[in-house]
Amino acid sequence: MAEGSIWEAFQHAGWEGLDNLTAIVDVNRLGQTRETMLGWNMDGYAERARAFGWHAIVIDGHDVDQIDVAFREAIDTHGHPTVVLARTKKGRGVRAVEDQPGKHGRPLDDPDEAIEELGGERELTVRVAAPPADGEPHRFETWGAELPSWQVGQEVATREAYGEALRALGHIRGDVVALDGELSNSTHSELFAHDHPDRYFEMFIAEQQMIAAAVGMQVRGWVPFASTFAAFVSRGYDFIRMAAISRANLRLAGSHAGVSIGEDGPSQMGLEDLAALRAVHGSTVLHPSDANQTARLVAEMADRPGISYLRALRPKTVVRTGPDEDIHIGGSRTVRASDGDELTIVACGITVGEAEKAADELAADGTRARVIDCYSIKPIDAGTLIQAALDTGGIITVEDHRAEGGLGEAVLAALAQEPERPPVTILAVREMPLSGKPAELMHSARIDAGAIVDAARRLAGVAA
Amino acid sequence: MAEGSIWEAFQHAGWEGLDNLTAIVDVNRLGQTRETMLGWNMDGYAERARAFGWHAIVIDGHDVDQIDVAFREAIDTHGHPTVVLARTKKGRGVRAVEDQPGKHGRPLDDPDEAIEELGGERELTVRVAAPPADGEPHRFETWGAELPSWQVGQEVATREAYGEALRALGHIRGDVVALDGELSNSTHSELFAHDHPDRYFEMFIAEQQMIAAAVGMQVRGWVPFASTFAAFVSRGYDFIRMAAISRANLRLAGSHAGVSIGEDGPSQMGLEDLAALRAVHGSTVLHPSDANQTARLVAEMADRPGISYLRALRPKTVVRTGPDEDIHIGGSRTVRASDGDELTIVACGITVGEAEKAADELAADGTRARVIDCYSIKPIDAGTLIQAALDTGGIITVEDHRAEGGLGEAVLAALAQEPERPPVTILAVREMPLSGKPAELMHSARIDAGAIVDAARRLAGVAA
Repeated sequence: MAEGSIWEAFQHAGWEGLDNLTAIVDVNRLGQTRETMLGWNMDGYAERARAFGWHAIVIDGHDVDQIDVAFREAIDTHGHPTVVLARTKKGRGVRAVEDQPGKHGRPLDDPDEAIEELGGERELTVRVAAPPADGEPHRFETWGAELPSWQVGQEVATREAYGEALRALGHIRGDVVALDGELSNSTHSELFAHDHPDRYFEMFIAEQQMIAAAVGMQVRGWVPFASTFAAFVSRGYDFIRMAAISRANLRLAGSHAGVSIGEDGPSQMGLEDLAALRAVHGSTVLHPSDANQTARLVAEMADRPGISYLRALRPKTVVRTGPDEDIHIGGSRTVRASDGDELTIVACGITVGEAEKAADELAADGTRARVIDCYSIKPIDAGTLIQAALDTGGIITVEDHRAEGGLGEAVLAALAQEPERPPVTILAVREMPLSGKPAELMHSARIDAGAIVDAARRLAGVAA
Repeated sequence: MAEGSIWEAFQHAGWEGLDNLTAIVDVNRLGQTRETMLGWNMDGYAERARAFGWHAIVIDGHDVDQIDVAFREAIDTHGHPTVVLARTKKGRGVRAVEDQPGKHGRPLDDPDEAIEELGGERELTVRVAAPPADGEPHRFETWGAELPSWQVGQEVATREAYGEALRALGHIRGDVVALDGELSNSTHSELFAHDHPDRYFEMFIAEQQMIAAAVGMQVRGWVPFASTFAAFVSRGYDFIRMAAISRANLRLAGSHAGVSIGEDGPSQMGLEDLAALRAVHGSTVLHPSDANQTARLVAEMADRPGISYLRALRPKTVVRTGPDEDIHIGGSRTVRASDGDELTIVACGITVGEAEKAADELAADGTRARVIDCYSIKPIDAGTLIQAALDTGGIITVEDHRAEGGLGEAVLAALAQEPERPPVTILAVREMPLSGKPAELMHSARIDAGAIVDAARRLAGVAA
């Protein structure tokens, strides 16, 4: 009850008036080493719960009749969730540990004595009323629609493509729902909310509760997409970790990634999200560079098991991917390639445009560069990368993310076991960004076309 | 006010009775897209604050006299922190945006009109009472002590060495303080608490507030060390990210890292912490394998700028490092090496022992393996790794952490620009661990001596 996430949940449930929700707090006074902040101050717990809009019932948690009465009262409570605050003694019935601090998680000195105190070895079977058999999960009405697509050459922000694709997915599938951390007009989940108001959930600025609610929804048979800024995904990181351990299937979108957001400054720049999300068990990490890629990947995420994460951009990017190209989780897009390529530039998201510009500039100097748009960072298209390592004398990776745990290291890992591989230069954000125009910040972080060209010339120097 | 971390802070400050703390809540009703959960329900805010032990004052936030009265009342309030709940209108005085949803962070259509409405362009200088000049930060009494050291061959958990080193550091330095997330008898920060009760801060199970409090303490001139389980560091990840952006100097310790914790299962296993912490701006990431390393690194952390993180183990490990060896941030320890080494095993923490065993087994087969204990993961000892890449025909990295963003990728990054480098095999936790004995879980995750030997034989096959 010291964790803020508990009160985040109390606040939201109270606001929603969830009278089908009953929480039980086992108030046993003790933490791991000492008394908790409130100890057995039952009124303290009750006042807090009531202040957040809950009906609170204080009982003796060892009295089965009181438990029964409390549950009936919870069923009869309308308009508010109920919390049953059960005063208990930790380790009750075993003298050696009952109500003692410092006994948490430790083996008993004399387990046989404890069994004796608890009434000796017995076979007890307690039959409880089974919950009603689950019916089919609720399905929302669909009208049929097609995934959006854009003409090559159009300029569209991938965050907007995310919203458009999600909206269409709602029309196509009756199981998709959306949640947002009160940034829906920035992440563009508002497009979904507009067409599907009954399956959009406003989670306000409470990312832990957003992830928690999404976990609950997928347990109940829905396909949740939860969005916020990439920077704020970090606020829910433990919940994401635990969702993976709980085998939840969640789709997350983090918009406004990287220094390319520009003026808002470093607190708003998601620069650690690729590293954090790649390290989550069984995760999928995607970072499309244009709108058509985004729409295809959003559609694939709906059927993807585990935690999938899509990183979206604030600024518009030019649509390079044709509407009918094969874009899929685990794939990549070769932007340009020829037999005589001397080096390879691997980019994702906003840096794909910089890689193209750099390749143009290098071509003018007579150096041919392959450009790979690595929109699927986990799983990564190892085959294409290994081929590039065989074909070319150097690799430059470039990402709008910290140098650790992002695209560059994912590429290194894909190539790690190759007996022969060329040198790899990782261009990434290594200093603290300031506030400025996107182009200025990308220049300052050394992840723009100019930085790629410089790195290519250094590589050529090494190779020569 | 939707974020749980706010209530985590309210709860802790209320419990501490911090009557020198005054919080101001600007209750302007609006979030980014819509009304907040409480809107202008001032009583709702006041009830919540009071339930958490605060004195709450509701005022019209546009009335300077009311603000003044409220601040006086806050000064005169004893035994409780005070929150001033100021009802305001967002964008007050500019018709185009005043109290309008959807105007957050958007440029005005007609800025000149807004300036006119606000009274035209003016030069206003407001002089406020300056806070008293800061004196010297409080220094605690010291008795003098030496850093603890252990005999080679002793078996000690690095988490215990952390606690012993921190306790000694408290005797040596008058500026060191410690915080813990109510796990002090597991992280062993209790050793510090025992000797220095006046500078140990129990943060209960509230990791965001623990980081926040540590940030505040270093602003005021103390040197805070904050500890919890490595798994729960993830709960405070956004606070760590923001602490780095705020240029805070923080020392964090995460104990019970990896599958080697054994029976408690995956929810308690920190397996993403190296990736998450490496990606933080300017961070230092350390993972000692024995007690002597730990003590030296803890002492160095006290003077280290930025966010430094020490990963500690639950099980005992044998002390391999002599008390007088040179252990330092950015260093590594070559456990064994010879001119004829055919391959290199790079390990850290619990896997160093496995690497030694594997090297013994390989030696029995006639294969000589170099073993590097890479206790400093960021910064990493690139020179030693590059030399190993030159000297040997293959590298195996082995870590009790996910494959992404940890030791393996840090090693790859250190070698990335080398024109010639042997294949690298990353041994890491790739499946969902279960509950079991540490040795069983390390075997199952394929990060034990047997897995290293298998990988070595595969590498030899590739090389041959």
